[in-house]
Amino acid sequence: MSASNPLILISNDDGITALGIRTLVEIMQELGEVVVVAPNSPQSGMGHAITIGEPLRLYPSKIFDNVAAYECSGTPADCVKLAKHWVLKDRTPDLVVSGINHGSNASVNVLYSGTMSAAIEGAIEGLPSIGFSLCDFSPTAHFAHARPFIKQIAQAVLQKGIPKGIALNVNIPAYSANAIAGIKICQQANAKWQEDFEERQDPYGRHYYWMTGSFVNFEKENQATDEWALAHNYVSVVPCQYNLTAVETVQTLKQWNL
Amino acid sequence: MSASNPLILISNDDGITALGIRTLVEIMQELGEVVVVAPNSPQSGMGHAITIGEPLRLYPSKIFDNVAAYECSGTPADCVKLAKHWVLKDRTPDLVVSGINHGSNASVNVLYSGTMSAAIEGAIEGLPSIGFSLCDFSPTAHFAHARPFIKQIAQAVLQKGIPKGIALNVNIPAYSANAIAGIKICQQANAKWQEDFEERQDPYGRHYYWMTGSFVNFEKENQATDEWALAHNYVSVVPCQYNLTAVETVQTLKQWNL
Repeated sequence: MSASNPLILISNDDGITALGIRTLVEIMQELGEVVVVAPNSPQSGMGHAITIGEPLRLYPSKIFDNVAAYECSGTPADCVKLAKHWVLKDRTPDLVVSGINHGSNASVNVLYSGTMSAAIEGAIEGLPSIGFSLCDFSPTAHFAHARPFIKQIAQAVLQKGIPKGIALNVNIPAYSANAIAGIKICQQANAKWQEDFEERQDPYGRHYYWMTGSFVNFEKENQATDEWALAHNYVSVVPCQYNLTAVETVQTLKQWNL
Repeated sequence: MSASNPLILISNDDGITALGIRTLVEIMQELGEVVVVAPNSPQSGMGHAITIGEPLRLYPSKIFDNVAAYECSGTPADCVKLAKHWVLKDRTPDLVVSGINHGSNASVNVLYSGTMSAAIEGAIEGLPSIGFSLCDFSPTAHFAHARPFIKQIAQAVLQKGIPKGIALNVNIPAYSANAIAGIKICQQANAKWQEDFEERQDPYGRHYYWMTGSFVNFEKENQATDEWALAHNYVSVVPCQYNLTAVETVQTLKQWNL
């Protein structure tokens, strides 16, 4: 790492024109040299999708002043792969950051999140990686209150590093009149979406279905969780691993003698 | 559960016309009542993507004899959500199975896998769930040697259940002259794809990029891993959780006093 001027790779899932990535670029320019490789269209909910069976497009973009930026036809995970192995080639980023997502990626949302898939892809590459999300879906969300926390967390990771294979999932409460209470290191809350589907008819008489749903938190009172922290106006930080092995269940299954 | 005739939900990521899901339907018909909700097009590499911001299509399909089947325009995770909350409504499946995938989903591939996202979506719903994959990408792959193992594992899960929130990632070696050595309960190998990009020009002179790459296994000698088991002709079974929290790193980060 170039301690004086670290190389910072930025991606997101809302697309390169989103206000969130613009804000993140501005914050990271205070910390080092920034390179952006981000999707050319919204990729929310893409999870850890990658593009197989068709090629990718990648074009330089002048959207940010004085920043090397590229827009890509692929998913957030594709963007990080292309950035690491094509755009940057022999240069290794000191930090990968993704976001700032317009909308929460706390609890189970981490699985559906394109923002976090870019960060986890960074972790797979062995790079210190962070996904930032604001708990506000609005395209014109207020980001100013989030800036000092994002800068502080990124600086800490640049200084101290994080264990290989770990990406931080950072969520920031939506702007309100109350000041942020602080930063809380958390675990992923056990929660899910209770889906509902609304059936409609198109002008040709054929049915289609809108997925809607309500969020159900199974451990509302658990102060160790990200959802509790956010509900109490803390910035939540969950270290995430991509090794999914349920270690205790390995032992259970061995006793089945399959 | 109806012990005598369990309800089994089937999905996949190669699409409803794939040989793998046809094979899985045949095996599961020996165990209970089968309902299929599967994508109407290939969804390989879709990870845990869900469809946000546009509606879904769902049409009944006559592709399987005597089986209630539906083809869906969405991702594998969408299919399980639609199946659980719309198609089956008040009926709860006793088992969710996904696959049989044409291609390995062992080690890091679990993250990119649409097959496993369907199984993990089942686990999020609190249902016993299994993703089955054959280590053979061919659309005409040989599945016969896999059948008894798939049936045995599905039967065991129907009888014993698995802990809530866990989905099994089952991978089966490609057909060879050597008989399968048995079933091995494993952990996810620490491995990754070392990407490479091939630049080409379209007929209009614009560049595009094919993602290629080679598989790198960082723990080739570790007999506890799924990759080791598959390399030694075992069926690998990895229990997977969707809580990504890296518990040890939570303690490390707390000491940063952010």
